[in-house]
Amino acid sequence: MTDKTLTSSGFYVSQEAPIHADNPIATPSSPAPDILRCAYMELVVTDLAVSRAFYVDVLDLTVTEEDENTIYLRSLEEFIHHNLVLRKGPVAAVAAFSYRVRTPEDLDRAVAFYEELGCRVERRAEGFTKGIGDSVRVEDPLGFPYEFFYETEHVERLAWRYDLYTPGALVRLDHFNQVTPDVPRAVKHYQDLGFRVTEDIQDEEGTVYAAWLRRKPTVHDTATTGGDGPRMHHVAFSTHEKHNILAICDKLGALRRSDAIERGPGRHGVSNAFYLYLRDPDGHRVEIYTQDYYTGDPDNPVVTWDVHDNQRRDWWGNPVVPSWYTEASLVLDLDGNPQPVVARTDASEMAVTIGADGFSYTRPGEELPEYKQGEYKLGHQL
Amino acid sequence: MTDKTLTSSGFYVSQEAPIHADNPIATPSSPAPDILRCAYMELVVTDLAVSRAFYVDVLDLTVTEEDENTIYLRSLEEFIHHNLVLRKGPVAAVAAFSYRVRTPEDLDRAVAFYEELGCRVERRAEGFTKGIGDSVRVEDPLGFPYEFFYETEHVERLAWRYDLYTPGALVRLDHFNQVTPDVPRAVKHYQDLGFRVTEDIQDEEGTVYAAWLRRKPTVHDTATTGGDGPRMHHVAFSTHEKHNILAICDKLGALRRSDAIERGPGRHGVSNAFYLYLRDPDGHRVEIYTQDYYTGDPDNPVVTWDVHDNQRRDWWGNPVVPSWYTEASLVLDLDGNPQPVVARTDASEMAVTIGADGFSYTRPGEELPEYKQGEYKLGHQL
Amino acid sequence: MTDKTLTSSGFYVSQEAPIHADNPIATPSSPAPDILRCAYMELVVTDLAVSRAFYVDVLDLTVTEEDENTIYLRSLEEFIHHNLVLRKGPVAAVAAFSYRVRTPEDLDRAVAFYEELGCRVERRAEGFTKGIGDSVRVEDPLGFPYEFFYETEHVERLAWRYDLYTPGALVRLDHFNQVTPDVPRAVKHYQDLGFRVTEDIQDEEGTVYAAWLRRKPTVHDTATTGGDGPRMHHVAFSTHEKHNILAICDKLGALRRSDAIERGPGRHGVSNAFYLYLRDPDGHRVEIYTQDYYTGDPDNPVVTWDVHDNQRRDWWGNPVVPSWYTEASLVLDLDGNPQPVVARTDASEMAVTIGADGFSYTRPGEELPEYKQGEYKLGHQL
Amino acid sequence: MTDKTLTSSGFYVSQEAPIHADNPIATPSSPAPDILRCAYMELVVTDLAVSRAFYVDVLDLTVTEEDENTIYLRSLEEFIHHNLVLRKGPVAAVAAFSYRVRTPEDLDRAVAFYEELGCRVERRAEGFTKGIGDSVRVEDPLGFPYEFFYETEHVERLAWRYDLYTPGALVRLDHFNQVTPDVPRAVKHYQDLGFRVTEDIQDEEGTVYAAWLRRKPTVHDTATTGGDGPRMHHVAFSTHEKHNILAICDKLGALRRSDAIERGPGRHGVSNAFYLYLRDPDGHRVEIYTQDYYTGDPDNPVVTWDVHDNQRRDWWGNPVVPSWYTEASLVLDLDGNPQPVVARTDASEMAVTIGADGFSYTRPGEELPEYKQGEYKLGHQL
Repeated sequence: MTDKTLTSSGFYVSQEAPIHADNPIATPSSPAPDILRCAYMELVVTDLAVSRAFYVDVLDLTVTEEDENTIYLRSLEEFIHHNLVLRKGPVAAVAAFSYRVRTPEDLDRAVAFYEELGCRVERRAEGFTKGIGDSVRVEDPLGFPYEFFYETEHVERLAWRYDLYTPGALVRLDHFNQVTPDVPRAVKHYQDLGFRVTEDIQDEEGTVYAAWLRRKPTVHDTATTGGDGPRMHHVAFSTHEKHNILAICDKLGALRRSDAIERGPGRHGVSNAFYLYLRDPDGHRVEIYTQDYYTGDPDNPVVTWDVHDNQRRDWWGNPVVPSWYTEASLVLDLDGNPQPVVARTDASEMAVTIGADGFSYTRPGEELPEYKQGEYKLGHQL
Repeated sequence: MTDKTLTSSGFYVSQEAPIHADNPIATPSSPAPDILRCAYMELVVTDLAVSRAFYVDVLDLTVTEEDENTIYLRSLEEFIHHNLVLRKGPVAAVAAFSYRVRTPEDLDRAVAFYEELGCRVERRAEGFTKGIGDSVRVEDPLGFPYEFFYETEHVERLAWRYDLYTPGALVRLDHFNQVTPDVPRAVKHYQDLGFRVTEDIQDEEGTVYAAWLRRKPTVHDTATTGGDGPRMHHVAFSTHEKHNILAICDKLGALRRSDAIERGPGRHGVSNAFYLYLRDPDGHRVEIYTQDYYTGDPDNPVVTWDVHDNQRRDWWGNPVVPSWYTEASLVLDLDGNPQPVVARTDASEMAVTIGADGFSYTRPGEELPEYKQGEYKLGHQL
Repeated sequence: MTDKTLTSSGFYVSQEAPIHADNPIATPSSPAPDILRCAYMELVVTDLAVSRAFYVDVLDLTVTEEDENTIYLRSLEEFIHHNLVLRKGPVAAVAAFSYRVRTPEDLDRAVAFYEELGCRVERRAEGFTKGIGDSVRVEDPLGFPYEFFYETEHVERLAWRYDLYTPGALVRLDHFNQVTPDVPRAVKHYQDLGFRVTEDIQDEEGTVYAAWLRRKPTVHDTATTGGDGPRMHHVAFSTHEKHNILAICDKLGALRRSDAIERGPGRHGVSNAFYLYLRDPDGHRVEIYTQDYYTGDPDNPVVTWDVHDNQRRDWWGNPVVPSWYTEASLVLDLDGNPQPVVARTDASEMAVTIGADGFSYTRPGEELPEYKQGEYKLGHQL
Repeated sequence: MTDKTLTSSGFYVSQEAPIHADNPIATPSSPAPDILRCAYMELVVTDLAVSRAFYVDVLDLTVTEEDENTIYLRSLEEFIHHNLVLRKGPVAAVAAFSYRVRTPEDLDRAVAFYEELGCRVERRAEGFTKGIGDSVRVEDPLGFPYEFFYETEHVERLAWRYDLYTPGALVRLDHFNQVTPDVPRAVKHYQDLGFRVTEDIQDEEGTVYAAWLRRKPTVHDTATTGGDGPRMHHVAFSTHEKHNILAICDKLGALRRSDAIERGPGRHGVSNAFYLYLRDPDGHRVEIYTQDYYTGDPDNPVVTWDVHDNQRRDWWGNPVVPSWYTEASLVLDLDGNPQPVVARTDASEMAVTIGADGFSYTRPGEELPEYKQGEYKLGHQL
């Protein structure tokens, strides 16, 4: 852990993302497309009516358009056609992690970039979903279905329509999170695609458990979480304030659907954002997120957390539930078949933290109080 | 469960507290003192400097006065001398649950009331602590050290001193919570003392696990929680808004003292308040609490929760940690010696909910999703 | 101004309400009814559909019941049938300021109390509105239509129904505010009725401009504001948090009805609450209010504000708009005819503060900065 | 007003900023420097101790470094040396609007860009202030002292240090605002410098009253406000949530400094942000700001407001105080002398809105209610 500076908050900062891949994917000579931001996710759901009830009636996303097989949803501040697509299908999975690029010409760059990598690439001038024009979809080197587009139908940004806001109003799509077995390999590849690392979790031997990567100047547009993959860990929408997230919990309680709450609410260590994790009717994980920080300067300090710091994933030290580590959604190839899942071989974050031999701490070198120990050493029982 | 009406929120309401004691304490013929509100708790702490750091530097209570053995603290909206006393002593315990009464004459009533019950009673014209005048302390029939007073020194109510507020500012003492083996017996006695039940937790056989009792028109001035007792479960201070409670968590994280967070933050089912439970350096439990409802009408509906409803203690269905059920503070007799603790013989709420044979539900008759089951069936392992 | 103590916040506190009536109403020998709290207001509105749109569609009050002439509304935490009645009528006015009393027998006390005062009294066993039983209405000595009742139909308290909450959710009726020419005379009479003064506004010569009076332990159940009267100044509902009040403003903006906002939002000096004043379609003023303080102790310090302190009505020093001082709703006699309005002869608060000869200050003895002076000396122009 | 679409919120959107300069500044052939964001402002203050009390004791900015003539301040999420410099000087004024650029080479571009425009340019390898390296300062074609730099000393980002947060914690520098007589001319020039218009205010004849311009993907890094100029209208810091802004007002009240509040708090129409305007001890205007929206897509819809829409500057329709329109800070040339102020000749926003002949509306074509009219037609009296 060289060239890292310990901060007064207990984590480290450095200038270069301190992550090195032993088994890197080649860097294409073709320039990467200029990605603006994560733009939408296409989710395959098994019962469209049940999913609609969750995303529209509970989470109050706005329906831009819908038909019997597909619902196009957006958050209140979005002006492009949608930032979530629900499509009916036989197996719950993710059909696309879709990014908006700066210009139409970036699609040509995307094609060249992935073809040079030997990836399967498909381009459709009319788009893969309604409301989106010329698009490129690929099976990326890590097995994820990535999409790039520029053309889109504009819809009204409803930011000022406070008559439509509910107490838990979602305003923006914030980020994706991908599960992949080899985090450094994934980081290196996404750096080649133009992403920058903002934070990561490591141990003292340099094992990397997760990393956060951004294009827009927030903490992330996507993150790579170590685990059996390729799988989708979660998709995150943001609210304006913390009370909006609490209101979603309150509403789920009132609807007797509190079992949709998997983890949180809480304050992240990583990202410093306030969060909540829900599970939709198919088990797809949705994060509600607010208030991370600006990362747009090229020398933005990279934050590295110790995997044994029990404030890294929850700043208040509340334990992470095991399902959050182990469960995730399948992703589809371009034929719509689930990608096979490859097991992680590096150490598991759950095992080294809440496992029976976990060594999590609030203050380095100090034991947790007795009433806290059970919470952190349950791994083998669960 | 007769004469109870099921509400659309999943709990029941009734007009009379549906609690009957099999082994009641006699009702005195002497009238009870007219209690205004819970007023202060006297806590014995083992290291005054360490406790001061917690209550003054972390929780930002205001020091009214202090000397080498005692610190007198108050919240920002209080105008009486203190609502928390920290006194240095050899064993962490509670020396007094202190209530303010309406008139000086109510002290005579308190003496008569408890003498008729055969309780040990001590009256001091100069008070037991600084800032409080003529006072009566008793060992009540359940073994708790109760105090009553009217006379007190006024200090400035700092409600408008926003220059002194911190993000987690505590504004009022809200309530006490007492652990006692036989809840119906305790409820009956405190009803004799003039308290009214606002909510309780029962099972289908009528076992009462906890009850909430009020004088001022909030959900409670004290509560009786079933368990080995007499012990003090917690003392609660209120904030103005929910974000103030989140700010306390954030600050504990920043100070690397997040292990002081035992449970929460969350939304209670009972009381509908937003909450957080902390443990002070001696393990005394402090709740931070905000936004329950007005209960001052004589026909205020009594709310009864099913013990198997996993939203009763956390409206979001987050599980209660075992230590919250099992750990509590000793209470002292009038000589300053810890009261012996008597075991509960009725069923334990922890056993019937998070135990291996627990039957908690979000929706009656429905199993929890797989990722939630582990959280609710851990009792025998903990 | 004897026996007042200057606080560090710039106002004074004293033990006795420092208000003396020169022209008092006689104190009845009959005991006053035991009032619990302000319970509901009956408003006469000229267009029921237009008023329904305001109170139901904009403010989201819950309709308990309605017919072609009357709408019965309640806030989310209320368990009695209604706390606002809208009744269609030819002239916008207030038909009743209604208080709940502790027992059915308090109605007999109310009858005796007002009959001794020579007031017109009407009692109806079946109530004056739906959902309310045996009731007494009077034309009180100040000309206000007061009602007292105990019997009421219980409805579900919707406090836990977060699926029904909107961002600006109203949870309780908090208080009334009455305009009357002679404030000390009104205060003395309402003290006879059992109210206690919590705060008032005076000048150095002892002119009283307004006073706040409570039964429940908040800052007020009603207030008396100096002006031409009897008239109704406003009725106030409370929210849980400040952002709820801001959300109402945001929604009014979105609906292009921001002209319903008359004053605020802001922080009151008096009461320390956060506030907003709206005007309904008939011009009835509605306050939205949150977070005053507990006043239930018999020796609760009475707060007296200097009328020249420009933080007394808005803690941030924002000026009060003239209409807020001058406009108010008519009140009806028991035949439904508007009570004649009598002019105030004491000094007007508006004249002595924002008038051309006003002497408002932020810090006693200091001039306001130039950019503020215009705001405080506009009275003669408006 | 061609190619504009009326939204359901009452303003218009279009693809191209609908602003055309009649008297444009030439577009340099040299490429503009690649600006990341507004980075800091250097303010000249006349009494350093008094200003320190305002910015450090009241607003709680963090002192990175200070000496007898200069104080370097930053907000909690900043990692560069400072985002506000207070320097002692004889005349209150602005010495620099400083922007961070993407690379050291952008300084060469800045030099070439402004030299081609014939502007005075000064470059200092050691920087003009502590903590900043190689810098270029210019007197821009509109008379403003602009600075560009890349090199800076990193300091700890205190985002996680919640023990340092106060209720009104400032987290980021958000934007500048410049007063200039000819808005279209200024817009055209700043577009040449790489800025993009996000919103503007016009009348039906195409007079442009103000425009908002961004580099980072928020509503602005700077804005141009029509008026006598060059002058500095305000510098804005952001908070996380709206209650943080209210807390600043509350604290100013508690300190008896509420006269520092010039306008607000309120919700902007333009930007949709929540705001407050303060005046520092020298009269420099500081905005506190939170929650605008993402603008980073190249086809982000440009919002145009009608100058007569009284929700454009305050979504709640609260009137803008005259001083806000007329008062602003002088700016300095590179010798430290105030730039002469040139009068605006286009129509004044204040005159056409709150003037005696103002025609502001809440709903187009409808008169304001009587109690609102006075507020909007006071211009000639003030």
